[in-house]
Amino acid sequence: MTPPGLPTSPSTASTASTASTALLTDRYELTMIDAALADGTAHRPCVFEVFARRLPAGRRYGVVAGTGRLLEALADFRFGQEEIAYLRGCEIVGERTLEYLADYRFTGSISGYAEGELYFPGSPLLVVEASFVDGVILETLALSILNHDSAIAAAASRMTVAAGTRPCLEMGSRRAHELAAVAAARAAVVAGFSGTSNLAAGRRYELPTIGTAAHAFTLLHDDERSAFLSQVASAGPGTTLLVDTYDVEQGVITAVDAAGTALGAVRLDSGDLPNLAREVRDQLDGLGATGTRIVVSSDLDEYAIAALAVAPVDSYGVGTSVVTGSGAPTCGMVYKLVLREGSDGAMHAVAKASAGGKNSVGGRKVAGRRIENGLATEEVVVLSPDADLPALDQIAEVAELRPLHVALVTDGEIDHAFTGPEGVRRAAERHASSIAELPRAALRLSAGEAALPTEVVTV
Amino acid sequence: MTPPGLPTSPSTASTASTASTALLTDRYELTMIDAALADGTAHRPCVFEVFARRLPAGRRYGVVAGTGRLLEALADFRFGQEEIAYLRGCEIVGERTLEYLADYRFTGSISGYAEGELYFPGSPLLVVEASFVDGVILETLALSILNHDSAIAAAASRMTVAAGTRPCLEMGSRRAHELAAVAAARAAVVAGFSGTSNLAAGRRYELPTIGTAAHAFTLLHDDERSAFLSQVASAGPGTTLLVDTYDVEQGVITAVDAAGTALGAVRLDSGDLPNLAREVRDQLDGLGATGTRIVVSSDLDEYAIAALAVAPVDSYGVGTSVVTGSGAPTCGMVYKLVLREGSDGAMHAVAKASAGGKNSVGGRKVAGRRIENGLATEEVVVLSPDADLPALDQIAEVAELRPLHVALVTDGEIDHAFTGPEGVRRAAERHASSIAELPRAALRLSAGEAALPTEVVTV
Repeated sequence: MTPPGLPTSPSTASTASTASTALLTDRYELTMIDAALADGTAHRPCVFEVFARRLPAGRRYGVVAGTGRLLEALADFRFGQEEIAYLRGCEIVGERTLEYLADYRFTGSISGYAEGELYFPGSPLLVVEASFVDGVILETLALSILNHDSAIAAAASRMTVAAGTRPCLEMGSRRAHELAAVAAARAAVVAGFSGTSNLAAGRRYELPTIGTAAHAFTLLHDDERSAFLSQVASAGPGTTLLVDTYDVEQGVITAVDAAGTALGAVRLDSGDLPNLAREVRDQLDGLGATGTRIVVSSDLDEYAIAALAVAPVDSYGVGTSVVTGSGAPTCGMVYKLVLREGSDGAMHAVAKASAGGKNSVGGRKVAGRRIENGLATEEVVVLSPDADLPALDQIAEVAELRPLHVALVTDGEIDHAFTGPEGVRRAAERHASSIAELPRAALRLSAGEAALPTEVVTV
Repeated sequence: MTPPGLPTSPSTASTASTASTALLTDRYELTMIDAALADGTAHRPCVFEVFARRLPAGRRYGVVAGTGRLLEALADFRFGQEEIAYLRGCEIVGERTLEYLADYRFTGSISGYAEGELYFPGSPLLVVEASFVDGVILETLALSILNHDSAIAAAASRMTVAAGTRPCLEMGSRRAHELAAVAAARAAVVAGFSGTSNLAAGRRYELPTIGTAAHAFTLLHDDERSAFLSQVASAGPGTTLLVDTYDVEQGVITAVDAAGTALGAVRLDSGDLPNLAREVRDQLDGLGATGTRIVVSSDLDEYAIAALAVAPVDSYGVGTSVVTGSGAPTCGMVYKLVLREGSDGAMHAVAKASAGGKNSVGGRKVAGRRIENGLATEEVVVLSPDADLPALDQIAEVAELRPLHVALVTDGEIDHAFTGPEGVRRAAERHASSIAELPRAALRLSAGEAALPTEVVTV
């Protein structure tokens, strides 16, 4: 214990961990490398592809998110002394492989959909060009990040679409793993949320943070009035007072009494929100607090938000449903080898072929979105079954195709325009632009098919 | 870039991050502290309680998990220079609060259900005794960890119950946030899983790790035979060969040809698993590989595992469904102020009282499980509506009550018997013992009510 009054020794490490990400990996990635280094296939040139066979049931589009985080994690994908010592101690791989891992740096290239972009079944979301061992080792980490963050962003996108011009605020940290919560806040903002309650996310990605008080603050005080007066004294009358600890009607009276008619907002966190919001709006207006906003929270999801569209609500606090993907907590993205050199020195398209519903399409691909009169009509995937990198201009009508692939990593060099706070801002812009291209039917919340068909064109 | 051949500068930081956990916190915890420090209520003695109002729909019991991780995170809950600088820069709290935060160490006491223990609606899972500011600040972090890990453990428990004596192996990292995946592997093992594919979890919690090869390894090679020979050369004939890349029947022939009848196992990752397992078992036996085991994976959940009970399967690889809580990706645990000192110097039970379905029961509680003839029959919560700490022996028939609360933190001292690898081992034992106490009906997978009623006894 540090004696009171003496300076403590604060942790200088940050929650924005710069620790190695290399063991966030399934064991079999390393055992495959162990065998491939021994048999001579390890350095065959390969192309891996990330795609989703389908969208979650009923969803009309997906949202790519996590790309910037993946690039940040790639920079920290290093096997340091501790990681090597663990692998040696467990005899998971041999010494030759440990030497390879100790020197591991990704030197290949990665292109893919820009973060924030929408996607559809079969969209080639990420294309990794590297030797087998250099590329396969990234499978687990890439999928963890993309599957999680994209699931959150897809749910968040439906909520911001439902909310229209009213802000959505992410407040779900307590219902998610403590570090997944940071990524979830980021993904929600990519998909149009205006801020988050999560301080670590606010710091790392320069996101606006929000939050004033919980019921505990009111309960701590001898009465509600004392609590409100304290909060207003501390945060000013522009604060948001939580009025549903005891009785909402009395709470509103006490709130306006404590803060005056300049009170910033009241928050309702329980009850029948559509009716309660109307009653509270009338009450606030009657008290002269016509500028006081109403914030609602309490198990909101995209359907509840839509149902509140005609209620006098000013912003939505969303928790559980956004951080858990609103029924689809992960995406089904997979990371597949689609092209590799054979013993003949030529490149060959490859794909799992057995019956069983997990087949994929071999070969290198690029993608474009067909835009007609400003509206998206089709996802076009151009496939080259052999070695050559296909190009969008290899097919007709190319002028109407908006290219979807951007270069993320080139010969091991990460493009940091996609990382950090700037990456989040760009991704949020990309999301807004791509949503604006979708036909209105694609934005319906009701269950439906993918909004755009995916056409695969072989060149 | 490091020149080839020269030693690199490995990251000495570990994925088991020791960074500060203090900003994994909702902003409102700090703004409440800001106001309470100003108005004089900050240091009122308080009791906070974590509980769940209900189980996920249809579930018969919950599983407490994450307790050990919470204690680990508590040890790193420090506001260092970077955290203070961020809060100052954003003007989230004032200087008085920053001084308090810079010195923050939890000096209160925490008791609660042992990790691995089962729980029911209203069970007082964690009891935090501290001043208001010392206790409220832990709300977000405590709930993040407990809600996530308990959701995984509850799903995993249903799977291990369904699997009976056959091992379940956790392989879901790619479908979860990359660090949530580490916690998920740990929680699955708490609930009876035998191992994980996740290397970071293996290292941090000394869990057995598993995994041999993906379809990509077979596809890398010119043919399946080359891939199998390579894997056997590298890992020995006791390895597990993945036989469904091209044609399962041929794959099994090639596998036994490559490894001999001492082949450890074959893995089936697609298709109609119950029938396929029977065919493969017959084929293996016919080839003389009678000791070769069959591992199945491919979107397994507790229902699929139950359906495979009569198939000749030796172990289950479970991915998506376990890391996403099999339909319930979070628990609804809340962290509520239940008792606090008033301006009169006396302790008062407190609870949110407005209509709206979020009410709780104020007052300090302890809990015991009533055991009759070795079987659990009731969750008994003993409530003291005033200041006194209730005790189980204040009610009749106490001899039949198994106490559920253990001391986790005493006056700021963390009991490290509950953390690290030893904590996981103890939690797994606790889970197995508590499952063994449940009546058989409680273990049915079908939707039902909570298996035990919760009786609240006021003393």
